[in-house]
Amino acid sequence: MDINDYIISIKDFPKEGVIFRDITPLMLNAEAYTSTIKQMAALISAEHPTKILAAESRGFFFGPAIAYELGLPFMPIRKKGKLPRQTISAEYELEYGTDLLFAHKDDFAQKGERVAIIDDVLATGGTAKAMCQIAQKAGADIACLAFLLGLKGLGGIEKLSGYKTIIMKEV
Amino acid sequence: MDINDYIISIKDFPKEGVIFRDITPLMLNAEAYTSTIKQMAALISAEHPTKILAAESRGFFFGPAIAYELGLPFMPIRKKGKLPRQTISAEYELEYGTDLLFAHKDDFAQKGERVAIIDDVLATGGTAKAMCQIAQKAGADIACLAFLLGLKGLGGIEKLSGYKTIIMKEV
Repeated sequence: MDINDYIISIKDFPKEGVIFRDITPLMLNAEAYTSTIKQMAALISAEHPTKILAAESRGFFFGPAIAYELGLPFMPIRKKGKLPRQTISAEYELEYGTDLLFAHKDDFAQKGERVAIIDDVLATGGTAKAMCQIAQKAGADIACLAFLLGLKGLGGIEKLSGYKTIIMKEV
Repeated sequence: MDINDYIISIKDFPKEGVIFRDITPLMLNAEAYTSTIKQMAALISAEHPTKILAAESRGFFFGPAIAYELGLPFMPIRKKGKLPRQTISAEYELEYGTDLLFAHKDDFAQKGERVAIIDDVLATGGTAKAMCQIAQKAGADIACLAFLLGLKGLGGIEKLSGYKTIIMKEV
């Protein structure tokens, strides 16, 4: 299967000049979604992670299902005010200003943690880099980062060049 | 297993007087998460849904994995400004005022659609009811609603009394 057959590109959403990649048709096709989760899980498994991480909201389309397929723990990375226990945070850039992502500090293993970080789309790489920083602050190694789509020309692929990065489809 | 063993109750989060149910420990225990997804999927499957629906963000901890387990299409329900194609919406009440949830209109089947609506926690039932309204506006039947936790005394269980409702654990 070609992932592109299940992506709709929409011009000028959410604003002029942006091409939005609508990945919801992939999940609406059970065969395509199943096949994608299995393929991503197999590639991620080869990097021997101990835990799967993904950030809200669209990262949760893939992270929990991949954790389920691999029988690995899943840890959500969330925006401000969502996690009730002690957190570790890292900053990422928005178009204007910055924002923060958070993880529960106590949910990282003290030793030998190797995390796989999942997201739907790699664009500038800002949130992916922030997730790596959170994991590294907690003493974890980055086993790999895995994305359904990697957008060319936005700098994300280059920004993550120090990590093992799995991209299912470049567009 | 007892789901309660994987839930941390946190007093006064996000504000005084509220007991927050932190379900993240369930996902951090791969056996508990796997077992829960399989049990929820089996109960949902008995209601013969054609599609799985869940709303951002915490509904995505369960909806996509259950769809994956059952080999069914998954449709995300989202907040304002997230879905690029034509939408159907429904209103739900907040503590002060109201907000809206959205689904892509064209992603419902024209005939014979039976949706299963998934969420992590049933509290007042406001967002669950809004999801039912979206599906019914699209001409779909509600096969069932399924929740990891049902909070007693908040009116949600009563609000959904007209629907087949699956609650894995009442607290």
